[in-house]
Amino acid sequence: MKIGLAQLNYMIGDFSGNLTKIKNAIEQAKLQQADIVVFSELNICGYPPRDFLEFNHFIKQCEYSIEQIAACTDNQLAVVVGAPSKNPTKDGKDLHNSAYFIADGKVQFIAHKTLLPTYDVFDEYRYFEPNKDFNIITYKDKKIAITICEDIWDTGEANPLYRVNPVAELAKHQPDFLLNLSASPFNYKQAQKRMDVVRKNATQFKLPVFYCNCVGAQTELIFDGGSMVMNADGILVDEMPYFEECIRFYSLESNVDSTSNSTVSPDFIDQQLPSIDRQQDKNETKLIHDALVCGIQNYFQKLGFKKAILGLSGGVDSALVLALAVKALGKENVLSVLMPSQFSTAHSVDDSLKLLENLGSPHKIIPIKEVFDVYDNVLQPHFENKPFDVTEENLQARIRGNYLMALSNKFGYILLNTTNKSEAAVGYGTLYGDMCGGLAVLADVYKTQVYALCRYINKESEIIPEHILTKAPSAELRDGQKDSDSLPDYAILDKVLLEYIEHHQGPDEIEAMGFDEALITRILRMVNRNEFKRHQTPPILRVSTKAFGSGRRLPIVGKYLES
Amino acid sequence: MKIGLAQLNYMIGDFSGNLTKIKNAIEQAKLQQADIVVFSELNICGYPPRDFLEFNHFIKQCEYSIEQIAACTDNQLAVVVGAPSKNPTKDGKDLHNSAYFIADGKVQFIAHKTLLPTYDVFDEYRYFEPNKDFNIITYKDKKIAITICEDIWDTGEANPLYRVNPVAELAKHQPDFLLNLSASPFNYKQAQKRMDVVRKNATQFKLPVFYCNCVGAQTELIFDGGSMVMNADGILVDEMPYFEECIRFYSLESNVDSTSNSTVSPDFIDQQLPSIDRQQDKNETKLIHDALVCGIQNYFQKLGFKKAILGLSGGVDSALVLALAVKALGKENVLSVLMPSQFSTAHSVDDSLKLLENLGSPHKIIPIKEVFDVYDNVLQPHFENKPFDVTEENLQARIRGNYLMALSNKFGYILLNTTNKSEAAVGYGTLYGDMCGGLAVLADVYKTQVYALCRYINKESEIIPEHILTKAPSAELRDGQKDSDSLPDYAILDKVLLEYIEHHQGPDEIEAMGFDEALITRILRMVNRNEFKRHQTPPILRVSTKAFGSGRRLPIVGKYLES
Repeated sequence: MKIGLAQLNYMIGDFSGNLTKIKNAIEQAKLQQADIVVFSELNICGYPPRDFLEFNHFIKQCEYSIEQIAACTDNQLAVVVGAPSKNPTKDGKDLHNSAYFIADGKVQFIAHKTLLPTYDVFDEYRYFEPNKDFNIITYKDKKIAITICEDIWDTGEANPLYRVNPVAELAKHQPDFLLNLSASPFNYKQAQKRMDVVRKNATQFKLPVFYCNCVGAQTELIFDGGSMVMNADGILVDEMPYFEECIRFYSLESNVDSTSNSTVSPDFIDQQLPSIDRQQDKNETKLIHDALVCGIQNYFQKLGFKKAILGLSGGVDSALVLALAVKALGKENVLSVLMPSQFSTAHSVDDSLKLLENLGSPHKIIPIKEVFDVYDNVLQPHFENKPFDVTEENLQARIRGNYLMALSNKFGYILLNTTNKSEAAVGYGTLYGDMCGGLAVLADVYKTQVYALCRYINKESEIIPEHILTKAPSAELRDGQKDSDSLPDYAILDKVLLEYIEHHQGPDEIEAMGFDEALITRILRMVNRNEFKRHQTPPILRVSTKAFGSGRRLPIVGKYLES
Repeated sequence: MKIGLAQLNYMIGDFSGNLTKIKNAIEQAKLQQADIVVFSELNICGYPPRDFLEFNHFIKQCEYSIEQIAACTDNQLAVVVGAPSKNPTKDGKDLHNSAYFIADGKVQFIAHKTLLPTYDVFDEYRYFEPNKDFNIITYKDKKIAITICEDIWDTGEANPLYRVNPVAELAKHQPDFLLNLSASPFNYKQAQKRMDVVRKNATQFKLPVFYCNCVGAQTELIFDGGSMVMNADGILVDEMPYFEECIRFYSLESNVDSTSNSTVSPDFIDQQLPSIDRQQDKNETKLIHDALVCGIQNYFQKLGFKKAILGLSGGVDSALVLALAVKALGKENVLSVLMPSQFSTAHSVDDSLKLLENLGSPHKIIPIKEVFDVYDNVLQPHFENKPFDVTEENLQARIRGNYLMALSNKFGYILLNTTNKSEAAVGYGTLYGDMCGGLAVLADVYKTQVYALCRYINKESEIIPEHILTKAPSAELRDGQKDSDSLPDYAILDKVLLEYIEHHQGPDEIEAMGFDEALITRILRMVNRNEFKRHQTPPILRVSTKAFGSGRRLPIVGKYLES
């Protein structure tokens, strides 16, 4: 039996575009004389469809696509796609998150998702009723168990999140192999974890697993693909590339000894590679780099924009965003704007120009002093002789935001936001100033990770000038300002933030790790008090296990850890 | 048996502040020689605690508060409070949403919430495992069924959201009465619906119901209180005031005929009112007005701010926000800034000054032309002779945003955003311009409702000048501009928006109501395409059944209804 996995990049709600991609893959499967081609979770509508699922009209569009796909199938090829289906019983949520097994012109079987992730960025119980019945389908004499994403993730931990393990239930029917349709978003720990999970299912239930993930970014969520086939003995047959569309086919051959399990061997379109060499590189910095490039690229492509604009300060964050954007969009499609003030150091402009030269990317220089002085004159009578303070600092950042947005509006650029995660965490940024933008590229990347990414980009030749990487970080909004005037050292700050944000450690637990109590209190309060700023942040490309945005939901008005 | 309901306003995460309120209510209950005093859902930590629940440290604080409350109880008074509790089994989510029945110095019984709302603004399955065991507690010879909020809302519709009705399960134990601890947020349809639901439970299960809601705003969610006592025959004994803290006590007397059910009579602190007269006014415009005032007031109080600033344009939206803010914060605590441009009509300033005179509230006038001209000069060489367009319109709005934020930063004001729901829906506003602010007061109020609210405020005397209510709406960002140049008539627009946003109707369904197809397409596309702007909107006071914000989650990058 020949089985294909189609790892594709969908657009949410673009039914005709998605259908075209699916039909093309079906054509390929027919050419390959495949028996089954498997797609990813909710691929008909794109994942995550969010509250579009609450519209009957949207569900009808999904049903119409399923009909179209059924019309492409024959008695040779079965197609397994993901789409919502209506809950046939009156009780519970109106929808299931389903996999449709389609062959011979009609839907032969529908499997519903049992485990509905409702944590972090996931809201599936908001929409779906969990599956309660565990059935398999027999097709061409093979018994096939079908699962959806999270269904295989409850792998027998001491403290499981769910009360039922759907794979264990399905295994009772003694299937020949397991399909999994996924929409499993990237974080820099995910690729290894995903492979462990697939392997655990394969070996625990002695089943070959065909795991098909989607690929591409959906606003803040980046899907890395990495679809794979694992034999029942836990040996990886093949792992598909990350951040790329890919369709591959595999041959499943039954052993002569009928008591042993089926094994899978790769039946590659390109025959040259042995299976084990196709495991992907799991270096975390490389993965984050590639994810961010994918995130930028897909955001622009899917919105129908080509050109980006950003403010280039001479600091490390905007330098990194520029390098990533050039990689994603092309050097001619990224306009950098240098906006020096009276507080800017000479090297800010020089370092930026050197970087631009290295990248061959266009720029403009628009100083902000003239406008700042007029604001200052107009506002002075209203300021009641109060001294220069954060007001004037913010005003400079906002003038820069205005310039960038004016050019963005006039020419149809999207403004890239350059805030990093350390700044976003402690509120070190100006609302409507440097926090402007259509997409926050680095707001899930700590400052220390920003440096690591720059070093990664420079690994073969110097793209980002060394001076940008060695000078002390500064917002340059007043004379001689350094980040370290208002913030702890980033090496310490980032560690405390990681424990609090990613690992959910409280003050006592962080203190037990050896950090200073007063420092912890100061940092945690800064994080909590700046929720109001993060509420107005652009969407943030998610690369960690806990990004700011829809995966982290905290009250704006609250008093936790304040006393 | 004397039962008290404590309808209080909590602060999320402020354990000591909440504990003080609870202890004061317990003192009152002791003075009244009450047998039980009932509080609202998760009142120990405040509702909704959101992802604070993911911190062990937060849960420990809840446990510590429970210990403190236990220490206040004796063998005379039982206290029923809401707090998370740890799931004692290893399977499923780690927490329950629980009600603690505390008497005689210790926790006597814990009831867990069965129905976990996971829709709209609610995310309870994100945190909590649902209850599966249905037990009641016997106290002073009374059998008491305890439920939490949503538990009583599954009242036998044809298409129930859940597979189990916890009240029906509890009723099998033949309780004498039902307690419900709620945290049920306001919308302008909610008060009537809530009373219907409580009545349905009372009559269906022939049980007196003691329903205790919380009160006060938690950022965007406004809790209106309206706690009530309903007899088993569905006769309302008492409904507590909306938007106010209130503690009242009721006597439950058993009839001599032991086969009939218990009845409740009010045992008021102030004895003068007969029960039925305490039903509250459910006029929708009045409710929205009072909710918005409560929302503003609580946002400032809880954040520790006193003073607000806003831009007063001469239009109806900012006029209404000013009137509401003056009501909420006091006339001396709201600073209006008039920022006329070359496109401002004379009446914009005149109308604003008349309004300010009526309210007795301070203002500043800061024209924007001087700064605008400098921006324009600086930017002209970069604009490549492109004509005046939305860029220059946005720039004016952003200069105003900068002035307001500068004054806000310098003096510690919070900027009130004046965007209405019609504008927010179709993206008729400038990011980082008129979309700035700490709190969006009207962004869940359609333009047509804005007028109704103004008329309500003017019902006794003219506060908002008549001319503001009768002139054609205009952003005044270019010569002779009117909203109607770019938008459909608000009377029609608002109806289509209501069908799409609140009622989840698709284009076909709206067309079947008699609206023009092309107009519907245009409006729905505007709504979908402007998700990116709403993503960066300040928190929005929620007064409808479907507000923009955490209750409406849609993809930013998507293509639904585009073709």
